Amino acid sequence: MSPTPARITAVDTHDIRFPTSRELDGSDAMNPDPDYSAAYVVLRTDAADGHEGHGFAFTIGRGNEVQVAAIEALSGHLIGRDLEELCADPSTLNRDLIGDSQLRWLGPEKGVMHMAIGAVVNAVWDLGAKRAGLPLWRLLAEAEPEWIVRQVDFRYLTDALTPEEALTLLRRGRPGAEERTARLVESGYPAYTTSPGWLGYDDEKLTRLAAEAVADGFRQIKLKVGADLDDDVRRGRGARSGRGPAGRLAGAAPPRGARDEPHPGHHARPPSDPYWIEEPTSPDDILGHAAIRRAVAPVKVATGEHVQNRIVFKQLLQAGALDVVQIDAARVGGVPENLAILLLAAKFGVPVCPHAGGVGLCELVQHLSMFDYVALSGTTEDRVIEYVDHLHDHFLDPVVIREGRYTAPTAPGFSAAMRPGSLARYTYPGGAFWAADLRKEQAE
Amino acid sequence: MSPTPARITAVDTHDIRFPTSRELDGSDAMNPDPDYSAAYVVLRTDAADGHEGHGFAFTIGRGNEVQVAAIEALSGHLIGRDLEELCADPSTLNRDLIGDSQLRWLGPEKGVMHMAIGAVVNAVWDLGAKRAGLPLWRLLAEAEPEWIVRQVDFRYLTDALTPEEALTLLRRGRPGAEERTARLVESGYPAYTTSPGWLGYDDEKLTRLAAEAVADGFRQIKLKVGADLDDDVRRGRGARSGRGPAGRLAGAAPPRGARDEPHPGHHARPPSDPYWIEEPTSPDDILGHAAIRRAVAPVKVATGEHVQNRIVFKQLLQAGALDVVQIDAARVGGVPENLAILLLAAKFGVPVCPHAGGVGLCELVQHLSMFDYVALSGTTEDRVIEYVDHLHDHFLDPVVIREGRYTAPTAPGFSAAMRPGSLARYTYPGGAFWAADLRKEQAE
Repeated sequence: MSPTPARITAVDTHDIRFPTSRELDGSDAMNPDPDYSAAYVVLRTDAADGHEGHGFAFTIGRGNEVQVAAIEALSGHLIGRDLEELCADPSTLNRDLIGDSQLRWLGPEKGVMHMAIGAVVNAVWDLGAKRAGLPLWRLLAEAEPEWIVRQVDFRYLTDALTPEEALTLLRRGRPGAEERTARLVESGYPAYTTSPGWLGYDDEKLTRLAAEAVADGFRQIKLKVGADLDDDVRRGRGARSGRGPAGRLAGAAPPRGARDEPHPGHHARPPSDPYWIEEPTSPDDILGHAAIRRAVAPVKVATGEHVQNRIVFKQLLQAGALDVVQIDAARVGGVPENLAILLLAAKFGVPVCPHAGGVGLCELVQHLSMFDYVALSGTTEDRVIEYVDHLHDHFLDPVVIREGRYTAPTAPGFSAAMRPGSLARYTYPGGAFWAADLRKEQAE
Repeated sequence: MSPTPARITAVDTHDIRFPTSRELDGSDAMNPDPDYSAAYVVLRTDAADGHEGHGFAFTIGRGNEVQVAAIEALSGHLIGRDLEELCADPSTLNRDLIGDSQLRWLGPEKGVMHMAIGAVVNAVWDLGAKRAGLPLWRLLAEAEPEWIVRQVDFRYLTDALTPEEALTLLRRGRPGAEERTARLVESGYPAYTTSPGWLGYDDEKLTRLAAEAVADGFRQIKLKVGADLDDDVRRGRGARSGRGPAGRLAGAAPPRGARDEPHPGHHARPPSDPYWIEEPTSPDDILGHAAIRRAVAPVKVATGEHVQNRIVFKQLLQAGALDVVQIDAARVGGVPENLAILLLAAKFGVPVCPHAGGVGLCELVQHLSMFDYVALSGTTEDRVIEYVDHLHDHFLDPVVIREGRYTAPTAPGFSAAMRPGSLARYTYPGGAFWAADLRKEQAE
């Protein structure tokens, strides 16, 4: 008699919200008052090892309950799954989720439903890495190229990237992988910081934080811009005076004009002369990005944190619409779709500089960039991971930044798990923080 | 003392599902088992006229509860709105909904959240047309061009269409409008039918239904294809034999190959030689559509039922990626976004042939095509509205088809209201139909 195989037994969801809008952390021209939030999912199993899979969709407050409902709509695809089979080839689940013949109408492959798929798929990869006893970046970097290719959904990609080409890129990335792993473990992966540059901060705070960031070893700082031209120019000067001549200054979306005058022809070079500008028009406007890139060169165009899937990234690359691919760990359909995007970027020779910040995005995305360095692109040249210094203390395996670089995670998994105390306190609206807040509001 | 202004007092939502999967109505290669559903919203007011605004997002079953949750997330923007102001300029609401600084992260302007915006915006237009005592098509057709232009959100469009150009197009559409209204009222707007061609129907049923459709006056029939090449060819012959030489045969998405071999270069001319093919690749793949269109010419490429917003339609037109714009009344952000898409299509000279069927999509979209005919394009040449003969009896003001043509609605509003008995019976899971179904399932 063979033993009963271990299975997924429960899909628990949590509506977690942090009151970040009160500090103006995370403010930019399009998102003036975000409450950084997570539609959080825990996969429980009956395996003897006791491992859980953790994942989440990041949102900025209102609507987090819609995101939670979307994750719950997927639970039928998860409950009862054989763990051994699932972890040996997680792509089978991914196809079931994306291919659900009724749920696909709600996307397909975009928005709330696709982010929900990303959350549960990432939770499965967290679980798989824990079961393998490896941090996810190492599991990916040590996997056979054939296995990685099998994880990727090539539907709608093969006019730009075939499975055979993907295999060639991964095989090209093998020589020197051990050496790069050693270097990564020793000195980490370069970061840039957005912490000094939120739109709600005054000039003194910005200049001081920029100087501190340079002293801490960051070589690139990002300013949020786009609310007012004069402000942008003055803030750019402030950040430069703090930063010294060595660092790069990037401007985050949307630059002046994108909001009121989205005509790509109206874009001249941005006034603060940054290294890159981010998402200068709608994330859906591939041809618009291409026109803007031509207009602002040699300033670079970066985009991706709102790009809905691999198909839009493919076209941004085909159209020559961007210089920097900003993957996001929780926007698309999880690890396998980000593998597709990393492979596309490698094919087109465009560097990947992930979007991070939010809730736990730094924790997740570091694994993807580290895989890219060790096993695919083989370089960190012109590559940096965004870093924002907040909310890390809510995670069990928070990122560690040393000298402006992400330290390679060593704990098994995807670094996605939040502290049980944080989950309890910031559950909306019943957790201790929000319940007290609501009582206070009612008393006033 | 001025009287208290009338306001929106309640946003009621309903999860309505019809068990269509049991009849294979609505089946195609990507949607084999749809349960046609509506996340349905009713806006109630304290106005003395007692009018309500009705709207909905169409889905195909699972996940309809997510869509309902998304509509509920918007209710804060609606409750308390001054009706007089809102109906005089509904664009103010539209901007608040799309611009919600936290909800926008869940799109922006795509998927579940954007369809929810479409549902409530359409409910407002239904209410406005009822208050004006006009069917919506007539309200739109009789509105001042300046007012129509004010309703349109031109963000991210002005590289293809400026407000001034939109105004010129609408002014060009004025001469002859009264004559066209009279013709419309007399003889309606041409339809084509998909009813004979669902993938789950056998050959005998298909041939018989095709012959009936031609006898009923339809000049175009659509077949669902893409599951099996031999089947497609045989079904095409069957439909042609039933249809006679006068009619056009269109093939609906996805044609053979799109699923397994999405490389646009692989597309040869479709075997059944249709008038158009629909959505031959991912609805997000603008450049892929353009490549396929070049490959299959002179067969036309139609797309749009899954196109998420005006920005993607803009690019499909800019890239020369389609011959037929298939607007959908419940996919994008409601009437004003469809006005934008109609104006874009007029600018590029591409005919609009709406997607319909589903639940109530025929009821809604006829108003948009009739406006287009009377006040914008001025023609029905190469233009047909899809018609599917099911679920109309659940509506209070169902479409009326005569001689293969949509009869112009005369009742005030947007024809969106479902019968109270249908709402009660098909509410999921508590309505009489589903409760009985569940009891039966449990007994088996």
